[in-house]
Amino acid sequence: MTKAIFYHAGCPVCVNAEDRITELIDRDRYQVEIVHLGEQRGRIAEAEAAGVKSVPALLLGHDVLHINFGASLADVKG
Amino acid sequence: MTKAIFYHAGCPVCVNAEDRITELIDRDRYQVEIVHLGEQRGRIAEAEAAGVKSVPALLLGHDVLHINFGASLADVKG
Repeated sequence: MTKAIFYHAGCPVCVNAEDRITELIDRDRYQVEIVHLGEQRGRIAEAEAAGVKSVPALLLGHDVLHINFGASLADVKG
Repeated sequence: MTKAIFYHAGCPVCVNAEDRITELIDRDRYQVEIVHLGEQRGRIAEAEAAGVKSVPALLLGHDVLHINFGASLADVKG
């Protein structure tokens, strides 16, 4: 199983992207972890280190897919 | 089968996103069409009408997922 992490911040753009990505993804091959950075603030640093610039974003190995634009990571940090 | 259309313009960001999305997507449930707007210029209007603002983008029903940023649709139009 390949691990994918979907980072979001609960914004409407995030929720829509989460719905589409979780529908789309092949669950037989990918294990998807959903991380709400507004609620799990301890994981912001990990997201930033992985290259996440904005949410929603999907981390796949070393590649970050920024999906539409809900908020910058700077805004999530507050 | 749900139809998904991946619009791109051959840029490096597009190629990376295409690789990730085509790996990720559940092919048992989604039929993915790949459209290179630089080569299939007759389809730019259709992409624009669907809400595509930049490439790469994935169209799923009425939702457009803009994935990272390769080029604006205006740039693709040239």
